[in-house]
Amino acid sequence: MTDPTAPSTAPEPWGTAVPSDVPTHWYNLAADLPEPPPPALHPGTREPLGPDDLAPLFPMALIMQEVSTERYVEIPQAVREVYALWRPSPLIRARRLERALGTPAKIFYKYEGVSPAGSHKPNTAVAQAYYNAAEGITKLTTETGAGQWGASLSMACALFDLECEVWQVRASYDSKPYRRMQMEVYGGTCHPSPSELTQAGRAMLAADPDTTGSLGMAISEAVEAAATNPTAHYSLGSVLNHVLLHQTVIGQEALAQLDEIGESADVVFGCAGGGSNLGGLTFPFLGRNLREGTTTRVVACEPAACPSLTQGEYRYDFGDVAGLTPLLKMHTLGKDFVPPPIHAGGLRYHGMAPMVSHAKELGLLDAIAIDQDAAFAAGLEFARAEAIIPAPESTHAVAGAIAHARQATTDETIVIGLSGNGVLDLPSYSSYV
Amino acid sequence: MTDPTAPSTAPEPWGTAVPSDVPTHWYNLAADLPEPPPPALHPGTREPLGPDDLAPLFPMALIMQEVSTERYVEIPQAVREVYALWRPSPLIRARRLERALGTPAKIFYKYEGVSPAGSHKPNTAVAQAYYNAAEGITKLTTETGAGQWGASLSMACALFDLECEVWQVRASYDSKPYRRMQMEVYGGTCHPSPSELTQAGRAMLAADPDTTGSLGMAISEAVEAAATNPTAHYSLGSVLNHVLLHQTVIGQEALAQLDEIGESADVVFGCAGGGSNLGGLTFPFLGRNLREGTTTRVVACEPAACPSLTQGEYRYDFGDVAGLTPLLKMHTLGKDFVPPPIHAGGLRYHGMAPMVSHAKELGLLDAIAIDQDAAFAAGLEFARAEAIIPAPESTHAVAGAIAHARQATTDETIVIGLSGNGVLDLPSYSSYV
Repeated sequence: MTDPTAPSTAPEPWGTAVPSDVPTHWYNLAADLPEPPPPALHPGTREPLGPDDLAPLFPMALIMQEVSTERYVEIPQAVREVYALWRPSPLIRARRLERALGTPAKIFYKYEGVSPAGSHKPNTAVAQAYYNAAEGITKLTTETGAGQWGASLSMACALFDLECEVWQVRASYDSKPYRRMQMEVYGGTCHPSPSELTQAGRAMLAADPDTTGSLGMAISEAVEAAATNPTAHYSLGSVLNHVLLHQTVIGQEALAQLDEIGESADVVFGCAGGGSNLGGLTFPFLGRNLREGTTTRVVACEPAACPSLTQGEYRYDFGDVAGLTPLLKMHTLGKDFVPPPIHAGGLRYHGMAPMVSHAKELGLLDAIAIDQDAAFAAGLEFARAEAIIPAPESTHAVAGAIAHARQATTDETIVIGLSGNGVLDLPSYSSYV
Repeated sequence: MTDPTAPSTAPEPWGTAVPSDVPTHWYNLAADLPEPPPPALHPGTREPLGPDDLAPLFPMALIMQEVSTERYVEIPQAVREVYALWRPSPLIRARRLERALGTPAKIFYKYEGVSPAGSHKPNTAVAQAYYNAAEGITKLTTETGAGQWGASLSMACALFDLECEVWQVRASYDSKPYRRMQMEVYGGTCHPSPSELTQAGRAMLAADPDTTGSLGMAISEAVEAAATNPTAHYSLGSVLNHVLLHQTVIGQEALAQLDEIGESADVVFGCAGGGSNLGGLTFPFLGRNLREGTTTRVVACEPAACPSLTQGEYRYDFGDVAGLTPLLKMHTLGKDFVPPPIHAGGLRYHGMAPMVSHAKELGLLDAIAIDQDAAFAAGLEFARAEAIIPAPESTHAVAGAIAHARQATTDETIVIGLSGNGVLDLPSYSSYV
């Protein structure tokens, strides 16, 4: 967690004094899979997508990561230096929770809420900002729902001197102002979507001046803004392979931290929305299972209200409502599925990351659906035992783990992915309490 | 930061598996002072206060700490086990900020915002909850302004199975609901003050039904509620000696962390309101100066709008507006001083901790007053360089350090006490931006 080693007498170049326990590489599950994941398809031709198709929106380094089959991708030193502000994140033994449950199981949680934005999202935001800045881009655009991703990308852009422009679903923009303020503190700009600033937004407003917006609409605005500006790119906070790749620092650290204390995970519970937290936490465990024959079980915990992995079809579908994105092979509830307004905003996505979907299809991981009330009950129980208030997203993993631990009859080792804290989601808890 | 060492097969008693770098003792500056601080006086007799005078409100262990002159007070293992959730807190080299300032100085910050409540307050809340529970108390009462202290005490009470009842100044209760929600998640109860629940509150409401309340009023309600309940005690989050004592884990860790990398602090900047963060951060440095002849300079940074150390008189005064508390010898603006509604709510106190005041009087530390705009400007500059958004209180220390670093001509070592994060104070930043 802490930091610097070599004192110096003057400002130094990037890339010095990063502690050795900050991972040096991201881990790519594609290298260890028994069969490759199906490719993304061009929405027009339905042919596999080529690098050039993505070049208007993403830097070439990220496009190459998207299709890489190398097992390890080196993390640039400038990114590691930022990671060192909060990484390695702590792996904590939940002794009070164990006592409260009366379980013989050992429960650990890997806590990403120590990042300055309070969740795992900066792990990829920092990497994406770095690669874009390195290729001469001066501005990133993105969409955000509740605002965790927009705040994380704004933070990352501040560190690499990039402009950041965020379209936030109007309903959240109006009702959850703290995240917008967070973006502004970091120098980012946040518009309610739909806005008058894009052709897509104007058309939407013309059709329905009172619309509260949607993530699909906000994506269209952010993509349009990037595509029409030669020095701007678009940035996505989940779903894509390179995003999950950047998140694997979580699982790699957890493996090393368990090794260091002579523990081995029997089962890992992670929450699943678009898939970036789940993939980042669990792919290093799955890779070890595949390479070394270990048998760590992985359980994806998704909301019963948006059950793509447990109820969705595994087929090609669009990533957005308007059907402008590439076609992705994934577990999907259909691009037109409108999830009910559950509190865990970060889990309200109709599809699931193609790599997570593929792993599920290969039988490498299990999935369960958690009812919203059960999730909040678990979050409260966790907070009162362990002092940390889990993010509403994370409570799904906590609920899965608590149910499992209550049934445990041995001292098996359970790992919970605590993807963030719920400090800016207190109104959601309050509704439940 | 991280955690468990000895794996076990079943739930264990409190007090195992605490990493060795979590301090084992609190440090008591009273042991090293060249002359003892003036005693607290009974408000009626004006004679020095005896232990029995405080027994209705505080457990005997804390009363003894209040007057102790032992250099080190052992931290109970149950308290250390909770500390281990976030302690040692990180000491981070602010390399990006150094570059942004173009300073030859080395800047470090000691970051207390990693605690589950987001500030340094849990360091004493956990200790106070432990000692009260150990003496058979079942409930704690307290007052809170913006809510950091109320949330921290609620958290600590959840961990030691105590009820927690908080009176929050009505203006904050109405305008800052997130902190109340945080208390409720931890199982605490929060009332707007003045309330109909106490004699003092009813009298206040009778006099002015539309009052927005004050910290002095809320103190009266919390004290009355504790004094009239034989199994309840009152808890204070700053000012008193035992509170500052508990906070010395901050400075002790900082000293050890600097030693470990071969650094020595030339100057330490801490924000000062009631004095608990300042004392906790700097007393271990002052003690070493006194014992070993080191020359670390300590600078207390207070708001220009509430300048007790730089403008107040050093004399006996009451801790509350109603004049019910003991008389404390301190730098004070007078108990009737009403600070303007500055954003850094935690620094709006008319007086200053007696131990900090005494140290100032002995010439052991310096004090400066920081204008509110300068504080927020420094907070923004810090956030955009280091990714962490400082609490409004902490921005005063950041502002002091940045001004110093801009003038620096050598590679001197500067330490900033970053007492908390500003995630729940974003509206204050937003007003400034």
